[in-house]
Amino acid sequence: MEDRSHYQSLFEPRAIAFIGASTTPTKWGFNILHHLYKGGYAGGIYPVNPQGGTWFGREIYKGLADVPRPVDLAVIVVPKERVPGTMRDCAAVGIRAAVVITAGFSETDAEGAALEREVVSIARESGIRIVGPNTMGVFSASPSPVQAVMMSTAIKPGGVAIVSQSGNLGTSMTYRFNRREIGISRLISSGNEADLKVEDFLEYLETDERTKVICLYVEGLRQGRRFLEAARHVALKKPVILLKGGTGTVGAGAAMSHTGALAGSFAVFRSMCRQANIIPAATIDDMVDVAGLMLSQPEFTGKRIGIVTQGGGWGVISADLCEEAGLELPPLEERVVAMLDRFLPPFWSRRNPIDLVAPGKVSMVTDAIETLMKHTDLDAILLLGLGYMTARARRWLDSPVLPIEAMERPARTMIDAEMELLELVVKQIREFNKPIIPVIDLVAFDEPADGNIVKHLDREGVMSYPSPEQAIRAIAGAQEYFRKRKSRA
Amino acid sequence: MEDRSHYQSLFEPRAIAFIGASTTPTKWGFNILHHLYKGGYAGGIYPVNPQGGTWFGREIYKGLADVPRPVDLAVIVVPKERVPGTMRDCAAVGIRAAVVITAGFSETDAEGAALEREVVSIARESGIRIVGPNTMGVFSASPSPVQAVMMSTAIKPGGVAIVSQSGNLGTSMTYRFNRREIGISRLISSGNEADLKVEDFLEYLETDERTKVICLYVEGLRQGRRFLEAARHVALKKPVILLKGGTGTVGAGAAMSHTGALAGSFAVFRSMCRQANIIPAATIDDMVDVAGLMLSQPEFTGKRIGIVTQGGGWGVISADLCEEAGLELPPLEERVVAMLDRFLPPFWSRRNPIDLVAPGKVSMVTDAIETLMKHTDLDAILLLGLGYMTARARRWLDSPVLPIEAMERPARTMIDAEMELLELVVKQIREFNKPIIPVIDLVAFDEPADGNIVKHLDREGVMSYPSPEQAIRAIAGAQEYFRKRKSRA
Repeated sequence: MEDRSHYQSLFEPRAIAFIGASTTPTKWGFNILHHLYKGGYAGGIYPVNPQGGTWFGREIYKGLADVPRPVDLAVIVVPKERVPGTMRDCAAVGIRAAVVITAGFSETDAEGAALEREVVSIARESGIRIVGPNTMGVFSASPSPVQAVMMSTAIKPGGVAIVSQSGNLGTSMTYRFNRREIGISRLISSGNEADLKVEDFLEYLETDERTKVICLYVEGLRQGRRFLEAARHVALKKPVILLKGGTGTVGAGAAMSHTGALAGSFAVFRSMCRQANIIPAATIDDMVDVAGLMLSQPEFTGKRIGIVTQGGGWGVISADLCEEAGLELPPLEERVVAMLDRFLPPFWSRRNPIDLVAPGKVSMVTDAIETLMKHTDLDAILLLGLGYMTARARRWLDSPVLPIEAMERPARTMIDAEMELLELVVKQIREFNKPIIPVIDLVAFDEPADGNIVKHLDREGVMSYPSPEQAIRAIAGAQEYFRKRKSRA
Repeated sequence: MEDRSHYQSLFEPRAIAFIGASTTPTKWGFNILHHLYKGGYAGGIYPVNPQGGTWFGREIYKGLADVPRPVDLAVIVVPKERVPGTMRDCAAVGIRAAVVITAGFSETDAEGAALEREVVSIARESGIRIVGPNTMGVFSASPSPVQAVMMSTAIKPGGVAIVSQSGNLGTSMTYRFNRREIGISRLISSGNEADLKVEDFLEYLETDERTKVICLYVEGLRQGRRFLEAARHVALKKPVILLKGGTGTVGAGAAMSHTGALAGSFAVFRSMCRQANIIPAATIDDMVDVAGLMLSQPEFTGKRIGIVTQGGGWGVISADLCEEAGLELPPLEERVVAMLDRFLPPFWSRRNPIDLVAPGKVSMVTDAIETLMKHTDLDAILLLGLGYMTARARRWLDSPVLPIEAMERPARTMIDAEMELLELVVKQIREFNKPIIPVIDLVAFDEPADGNIVKHLDREGVMSYPSPEQAIRAIAGAQEYFRKRKSRA
């Protein structure tokens, strides 16, 4: 049985030594230490620097030997030539895992590569496992937040694990998830992968109960077969979404230069992923969109999509996009049209996309959804056009030409109606156990939080999309994954 | 010579009659009138309703006959059966143009179609030109803002004209442009196109001096040959960006049902567009991205792109995306590498993408750009990784573990440095007269406006992009247009 205890040292340390602590704000020795403290880690954080002193009132230890024990994890930001010595010091105090932030190793030149080999050899001898070097760091949400990363934003805990062979892309992904109230379980910038590799982390995440969805950014694999095997296993349990960097010739060269990873043939890689039921993402936005869908909606395996829209044009382009994405838009049976005719306004489209035009009542939307859920065999519903009512009501209230006292009541009524609609839709998702995916086109993040229905839904754990194309790409990606997984179960 | 004076009545009216005025906030007769007033139109706005009364202190005229003259434009929101009579009344008082908001015409049934024919026949007899019916309305920025639209947001005046066969997509486009501080010259929701059609508006916009870029959403064309001819002409002068709805079979059916437009063969249409040098947009976000680039950056005709990045992963995926988009990433000549070596940190990538890793000084970025501009034949530079400094500095200031008095100075220095970088980049765009396109990945619209560098650049008239893929699609679209236009000039 493989020893996996180092993952505990890494992700659930009892205490952390921060080696290379600095009081200079432009240095990583300052910033990453700051993020560790700010992250709210409950165990001991021990800054180390030979010069000693304090870090805003917190003691800086002059050497690792002075640090209280036990300490499981070292975060290392010392100059590269001092990394080997530091590793030996870590071994001496029983540290089991090290995040080596320091750069200047195999990603630079032959000298750097030799230094990296030395570091790895010390690690092997002493039983320390390494993330990096040349890593942006590691975040672990639980049991207590370890925010040992360059990224300065507070990271929300949650179900998404990110393993990235690029620090800045890992940061970009985390930032995007957090904006949408989607939390992170573990974030690993794997750096040069001198020791622990994306393959290792993938195996770890398979059994990590905190992790529900795995997002990978991969430029090159050192152990392709092992990766494929691990991915195939994991994908039977939880979705693995992968963005591949270095798919072109120039990009592959650039990848080589920044982490030393060999990109390999993209065609081969893509077919490997298909076999392993890895979800391919073309961009990090795609990644966030499909992960958000999987975390917020029930599982679905079929392609039959119903579009319910409050505007004709949206319905048209969404139908086009569904067809392009290989999704189906089944026609409505006459009996269903007849049922909808009973309560929809006379000018509704009488077809799928179900264009309600401008529904006068909240119940028209929810009754239409209910009818479709009960009397058709659609697999999911795309709901377009939310946000209009709230947007309009807010414009009434801030209008220079309308007396506020005349508008307060109708505005309240309208805002309440849209909020009620949201609540009902969230309930319908649970009730019918099928996805109802909202697109909110006219309310953006920059709108005031009060009444911002995007943020409201985010807090309810339901991902909405700012455009139909983003929603539809996510639906297509999730559907294919769920369908394949079911067929392999 | 064709009479074009009706465009003056429509877009530059001396006064506007609003027929169907209402004091009920849920009605279009209330909301569109509200938007007209709020928009700040300088001429007379005359609400009309047989019941008379007032609209928040403004007189409602009982009939058109009572309205002061001259009045050029009628905005009509009366019930459909009263539209023919209203048109006759308009003719009687010398109105030359009408925006018929009212729906229920040819988009519904045979009876509706007959009513539409009656309206058109009255229009022909009386010399009134019609937008609609079944339109979301019209906005015209100048000489005085006519905001006769359903859309409730204040519309910023500017250089983009939008003609949309879908009201809600026209609204979505306008909203997106306005968020990025890009103003609109004319917005026309062409509705059922019973009289004036997208072909007409395209001809008008060719000579409209306010309009610099034209965005079209088209589901179907009634006069394909005329459209093509007009587009070809216009595209020699200004960019025409087109999103096509109804490209799939279900979408085409839906288009038919909501505006009665026949979608036709998409393959034929696409090849028509290519011949006319119309820029195809896959989504409205693409449309905004490419229009924003054309409005904010110098013209460029070549494909040679330099990538300057503050992070390796971004460089890799951007290189991949450039190759996919058919753009070129020329290698750096040795003499250029040597020049850059003089001032860049030792670990820079020494290739294109030019990865600065973490440049210590603003001048490293701007000097790198200057060297590339002066000593290579790149056509445009993609600048990745802005925003980090500001984001970090703000996190220092709001940190619960850092004393604010210790951080104020370093934060100010860092924010000022990034702001200085922005200013220098904006200057370099003008100085070298080549595009430098910023991607800002970690500062979003929801960040506080103070120090929000996205909004700062928006106000400076420079479009930044939230992801490399959006920037690269825009670059590829703009480059192809400019190149073709030059070769045809």
